[in-house]
Amino acid sequence: MKVDGVPYRTIWLADDGWSVEIIDQTRLPHDFVTLFVRTLDDAVDAINKMRVRGAPLIGAMAAYGLCLALRQNASDRSLEEAGNLLRATRPTAVNLAWALDRVSKSVRPCTASDRADAAYEAAAKICDEDIQICESIGRNGLPVIEAAAEKKAPGPVNILTHCNAGWLATVDWGTALAPVYYAHDAGIAVHVWVDETRPRNQGASLTAWELGKHGVPHTVIADNAGGHLMQTGRVDLCITGTDRTAANGDVCNKIGTYLKALAASDNGVPFYVGLPGPTIDWDMENGAAIPIEERDVQEVTHARGIDHAGHCVEIRLTPEGSQAANPAFDVTPAHLITGLITERGICEANKEGLNQLFGKKI
Amino acid sequence: MKVDGVPYRTIWLADDGWSVEIIDQTRLPHDFVTLFVRTLDDAVDAINKMRVRGAPLIGAMAAYGLCLALRQNASDRSLEEAGNLLRATRPTAVNLAWALDRVSKSVRPCTASDRADAAYEAAAKICDEDIQICESIGRNGLPVIEAAAEKKAPGPVNILTHCNAGWLATVDWGTALAPVYYAHDAGIAVHVWVDETRPRNQGASLTAWELGKHGVPHTVIADNAGGHLMQTGRVDLCITGTDRTAANGDVCNKIGTYLKALAASDNGVPFYVGLPGPTIDWDMENGAAIPIEERDVQEVTHARGIDHAGHCVEIRLTPEGSQAANPAFDVTPAHLITGLITERGICEANKEGLNQLFGKKI
Repeated sequence: MKVDGVPYRTIWLADDGWSVEIIDQTRLPHDFVTLFVRTLDDAVDAINKMRVRGAPLIGAMAAYGLCLALRQNASDRSLEEAGNLLRATRPTAVNLAWALDRVSKSVRPCTASDRADAAYEAAAKICDEDIQICESIGRNGLPVIEAAAEKKAPGPVNILTHCNAGWLATVDWGTALAPVYYAHDAGIAVHVWVDETRPRNQGASLTAWELGKHGVPHTVIADNAGGHLMQTGRVDLCITGTDRTAANGDVCNKIGTYLKALAASDNGVPFYVGLPGPTIDWDMENGAAIPIEERDVQEVTHARGIDHAGHCVEIRLTPEGSQAANPAFDVTPAHLITGLITERGICEANKEGLNQLFGKKI
Repeated sequence: MKVDGVPYRTIWLADDGWSVEIIDQTRLPHDFVTLFVRTLDDAVDAINKMRVRGAPLIGAMAAYGLCLALRQNASDRSLEEAGNLLRATRPTAVNLAWALDRVSKSVRPCTASDRADAAYEAAAKICDEDIQICESIGRNGLPVIEAAAEKKAPGPVNILTHCNAGWLATVDWGTALAPVYYAHDAGIAVHVWVDETRPRNQGASLTAWELGKHGVPHTVIADNAGGHLMQTGRVDLCITGTDRTAANGDVCNKIGTYLKALAASDNGVPFYVGLPGPTIDWDMENGAAIPIEERDVQEVTHARGIDHAGHCVEIRLTPEGSQAANPAFDVTPAHLITGLITERGICEANKEGLNQLFGKKI
């Protein structure tokens, strides 16, 4: 999508043909900065520090991380060690393991001298496919927003989203926000309620930024507000992303998604999930066993933003001595989900729905 | 309760016998500062700026605001104008109107020269009664925690609370937290999950501070985390406060309370509300018509805390140009509430329950 009129992806190959460039998402929304990723360590750091985040983008970054490792050392051992290092960065998103397995599978049969090239080819394919998947999610989700728009005309369709599942979470387009961009570009009046998504504020810092840059009307709210907005008829539709989807349709997504799904169910508001196929974990029968990442508690005790002088600062919110906890994801049970918007169409959030679209293995 | 070993109330008469002193809650948790309130304007400012907040404490401050106005001018017109000014400060908590009506009723029959004295007497009585009410809520709520403790022994009872309904929200003791203090002081192992309560962070700044000062183990969490903690069996009990309770038991409390009540219901976690009688609005048949305060959006777009140098600073979280909205309360339907813990005992959250305890009018 565009930033000040210039089209960007979140990750791309630099002009030298091997370095990887990314948007440093920890600097948004106040500074738009791109970074070079030139080593395996850089790639691990980019994922760990959440310079890149979002399940699909983590997968793309991990794929390029393997490329950078193989460029230095194309041995089996290097491949295995780099894979293990990257796999350990973040536990919840399944795309990470999926992308690593896919690149590894492509390069393993190659001779050492061909492995780096094969890896770059596989990584580029993962990125291009991600864009196609996300664009298809947008196209397939459009009718959901069109139907809501017909009921609401001429007023805008009010869509609530949580965290960031926009183009910044993928290579381009986004998952939850792809239908929103499709609808907006088609001239449908949409307005997005953006959950700020504490503790890392991906909604306030990333979703608000990318919607603003694309010209989509939106309003940032505290994570506490969505239930009240639904109770008072001000939300027509919810769409979120997913970091891992179990075979039964349970969705593991950013912490707090479950609370919004409960409120949507209680108020008869449709709750959709933008779901790229690679996010499905067929080995996970239901969501209960999905590992939930526990992140640094400083994300809860502190907040980052810019002060009056325009400097980026971190402030402490809690009293000294108070403990904190920081689970980063929760599981939304399938029965609370109206539908899964995938690149292959919309299906019910259950085993039959997923199997019909994806025929077991994708 | 105690601050560094010294017993405090949140509001008290100064040594001069007429000025009012308060704890400036906008400076917590980083600075403990007390302030003099000497005029009607000071009192209006203290409520508007949330130097004092919490339904019972707002009522107490408003009562003293009338005293300060009558001290200057004890005419009927002064009484009426001061009442209107104070009544307009915040729309949701019903204690505000209740306290103003009560003081007005006491002073109206008096001669002008007696009015200020009568008002001070009524305000002092409101404060003393508030303490009695809150202590009774603590005593009446104790068996709920004791019962949970028996099941959990020897592990601590994990209690989730939202916003601040501790002693800082009242004159002393608190509402939701009074049973927690009672249990802790009785030697029962309790641990409190403290919702940070964006956008004003009353949980992270006030609840964590007062629990810490009293030595109650607690953990601050993002508002998004409570549902996941309940799903994974780490919450035994929820207790919140209420700013206004409808005659049918619907509870209007800090924005986000409804989401936690939904999660509690979905996971079979008991959800209690600490309810002082003066918070009941008998004229409000159900919660739908309770006016919900819309506060300054800067509370959402910004956050306040201390930087590395120990200075209190405000930072912007959102991109320039992004709009925000800030509804401050929501309504939790009575059917999601396990019980109302009042100064007269525990009752079901419905008309019959409230009528049995309070006999219609209190």
